[in-house]
Amino acid sequence: MAYPYKKMQEEDFDYIRSVTAEDRVWTGDEIAREYYHDEMPEYGEYPPELYVEVENTEEISKIMAYAYQENIPVVCRGAGTGLAGGATCKYGGIMLSIMRMNRIFPVDHKNQTITAEPGALLIDIQAAAAAEGLFYPPDPGEKTASIGGNVITNAGGMKAVRYGLTRDFVRCMEVVLPDGSIMNFSSNVVKNTTGYDLKDLVIGSEGTLCILTQVTLKLLPAPTCSCTLVMPFASLEECADMVPKVLELPFVPTAIEFLERELIDIVERRLHKFFPVKEGEAVLIVMYDASSRQELDSAVRAASEAALANGAFDCCIAATPERAGSVWDVRGAILEGMKADSVSQEECDVVVPRSRIAEYVKKAKKIALSHGIRVEPCGHCGDGNIHTEMLRGPEMSDEEWKSATHASLTELYALSKELGGQLSGEHGIGNGRLKFLEEFVGPRMIQLYKSVKLAFDDKLILNPGKVVEFQEDRM
Amino acid sequence: MAYPYKKMQEEDFDYIRSVTAEDRVWTGDEIAREYYHDEMPEYGEYPPELYVEVENTEEISKIMAYAYQENIPVVCRGAGTGLAGGATCKYGGIMLSIMRMNRIFPVDHKNQTITAEPGALLIDIQAAAAAEGLFYPPDPGEKTASIGGNVITNAGGMKAVRYGLTRDFVRCMEVVLPDGSIMNFSSNVVKNTTGYDLKDLVIGSEGTLCILTQVTLKLLPAPTCSCTLVMPFASLEECADMVPKVLELPFVPTAIEFLERELIDIVERRLHKFFPVKEGEAVLIVMYDASSRQELDSAVRAASEAALANGAFDCCIAATPERAGSVWDVRGAILEGMKADSVSQEECDVVVPRSRIAEYVKKAKKIALSHGIRVEPCGHCGDGNIHTEMLRGPEMSDEEWKSATHASLTELYALSKELGGQLSGEHGIGNGRLKFLEEFVGPRMIQLYKSVKLAFDDKLILNPGKVVEFQEDRM
Repeated sequence: MAYPYKKMQEEDFDYIRSVTAEDRVWTGDEIAREYYHDEMPEYGEYPPELYVEVENTEEISKIMAYAYQENIPVVCRGAGTGLAGGATCKYGGIMLSIMRMNRIFPVDHKNQTITAEPGALLIDIQAAAAAEGLFYPPDPGEKTASIGGNVITNAGGMKAVRYGLTRDFVRCMEVVLPDGSIMNFSSNVVKNTTGYDLKDLVIGSEGTLCILTQVTLKLLPAPTCSCTLVMPFASLEECADMVPKVLELPFVPTAIEFLERELIDIVERRLHKFFPVKEGEAVLIVMYDASSRQELDSAVRAASEAALANGAFDCCIAATPERAGSVWDVRGAILEGMKADSVSQEECDVVVPRSRIAEYVKKAKKIALSHGIRVEPCGHCGDGNIHTEMLRGPEMSDEEWKSATHASLTELYALSKELGGQLSGEHGIGNGRLKFLEEFVGPRMIQLYKSVKLAFDDKLILNPGKVVEFQEDRM
Repeated sequence: MAYPYKKMQEEDFDYIRSVTAEDRVWTGDEIAREYYHDEMPEYGEYPPELYVEVENTEEISKIMAYAYQENIPVVCRGAGTGLAGGATCKYGGIMLSIMRMNRIFPVDHKNQTITAEPGALLIDIQAAAAAEGLFYPPDPGEKTASIGGNVITNAGGMKAVRYGLTRDFVRCMEVVLPDGSIMNFSSNVVKNTTGYDLKDLVIGSEGTLCILTQVTLKLLPAPTCSCTLVMPFASLEECADMVPKVLELPFVPTAIEFLERELIDIVERRLHKFFPVKEGEAVLIVMYDASSRQELDSAVRAASEAALANGAFDCCIAATPERAGSVWDVRGAILEGMKADSVSQEECDVVVPRSRIAEYVKKAKKIALSHGIRVEPCGHCGDGNIHTEMLRGPEMSDEEWKSATHASLTELYALSKELGGQLSGEHGIGNGRLKFLEEFVGPRMIQLYKSVKLAFDDKLILNPGKVVEFQEDRM
């Protein structure tokens, strides 16, 4: 390892221009401010020294080989929709955007896969699959995310209950290592025990091990029908208690989300999107997909009966796409609604065992309130991944907000650990959660993470200071 | 790294006895010969210096800490049913059996999981889940395998088409690192982006990174009905061509296997198990699971129509457990039948894209025949994982057999690579496929594997000489 990182010079800028193109390179103050941060500017704003939009794998390989030789940090960036402060140039250097690499190749019907470059948008991948009667299930709320970002952060989302995470759909990938080597991790095969499973290690590694340059994704036959149920309850805790009961039924739901009335009110008031169910202090939203009407009807019947037997006031069936749309529109607008309803936000993305959801929710509210913070737990309760959103009121000073959120997060993470949960369910560590990681996983695990990081990136030039932080980063 | 490995002394034996028990430690010639090899003695027979049956995680931790300090190799062994020469003491040292650690904890209904120690048998895990109305799908043919072995080799099996691999069912694990540290990789949560995904890296690492001491597995609601179809065709190639057509239907099959008549004849003749379908030079066996009779009927109808439209002589429906049993019994007896019908066997476990199965099968037969070897491709064609079994006739000398299988394997692996496949689909690298790995994945990948190995096992004491081989191993 050679520190400190090189401060980039005009000769470095020229080299990057020479292996890409003049009009795809920006330096210093030419670089747009939006590239200083992701969707959470709260987790740090850092100016890159150079911003380049690459067009192919060979350009990435040349840039990395040069950066490796010259000891320049490189951060790969997709659509910038991350929520962990991951895709930022914490130690300066090169920001490498892959958003021009957005080709989607024709669906491979025999293998039921689709191959794309990392800058392709998730929404376009989903549409390309659907146009061929197939289905790419992962659906994290953010439709404008890049598929590369989804893969490298192992994006989750609402349909993970039935279909799993992005990880579960990655068949193989092409990547560039920090030294510029172009590698393939696995191929278009459905099983593989050839050497170590580096593909899965790289998924969710937040751009700290290598740069993804192409990915092949598994597709499924599209379900032919689906139905959304809304179950209103007297409290969020009752909603949470219902979750294991839904999961015990012989039908696997596609999604299980919960929402408190307070959050629904915010979205209705701020964004004028109206939720079709008016009763209940909290609602459980359950979605089923099926390949036949009979199968769907059986699932809906069983879930409705279970809801009514477990204290739901009602079980409203949104059987048409329009009615289901009005439910999911409100759910999808939560983050926007909260942004409109508060000065700023902090978010806790813990995941707990499904059996502990109700307990987590109850205690999380108490913790935040004890620090004078308004908290809105919502999200993927079918997964135990509770987005505990903290909202800053206009009355709080910067200092009060900072110390109250830090104190709340410290206690919320300790609670998650006590309940057998994890620090982050789907948003990742990035820069924003780094300071809480060692306390959570312990020093031996951090040592192991560091060894793994070094196995790929011995000079620590790729997205330094994210997920793991070496003292040397700062030198 | 400190080489060579220590040759164990009486003091080392005494230490291991002191942290376990006198009557669970064997040394030198006391060690049963079966522990010199796994199910493939062809891949090497190596005597351990000491064989110990541990009873808990703490014993493993103490043994590893000692071995780490003293530079003694350790190989963890489950039921010994591996097919890659993986669980053998290639460089002597300690063989650590976890077969006494076989507790299965009560099913956790709220989380739909089951937790077990690594020595629990797969068949007992399946039974424990079934007794509670739940289902653990992974089903590699070998029922007496340990769950630890299944996890550490990422066992596949017949039902991977629908349900996936062992990997897809591992929620979390407890392991012991080479230095004796006890770690937990993830917890009983359904998604996790907290640091690097070490859990998935360890799955399939063949005991070279750490020792598994406890695992929590995801369970599914048990399907309520299932049906097996047998589609006889004029040739194996026609069977293979049918596979993508089955997969294009809107119903995901549980298993798709193929068998040539010659293999069926061997099982009928040698083992007196009789296959219910008499016509066809080759048969495709397709199984569906469903949660309702309607769903099952729709799938069976669609698959039958597709079979008849694509050249099948017939589509025989084995709707009762007895009839389905007679089909699967023959399929399950293939390895035993081939063992009875030949002097010895060599096996090629390649996996190719589903779209290339027919091409692989056709060319594989030509390759083996050109080297004078009888070859029987069979297996998981729904996965593209074709077990290309080579059978040694009594007329071949040791030398002929060795050189002909080596030449065949070299060409078969090159063919798999050319078709976009992999070296091993489910049996792993171990010792038996090690010599073919570098040619297949290339030197940069081997370098990466070595870095990853060192990240966990800096002294190279855990199952040395498997998956990756360091020159230093031999010193």
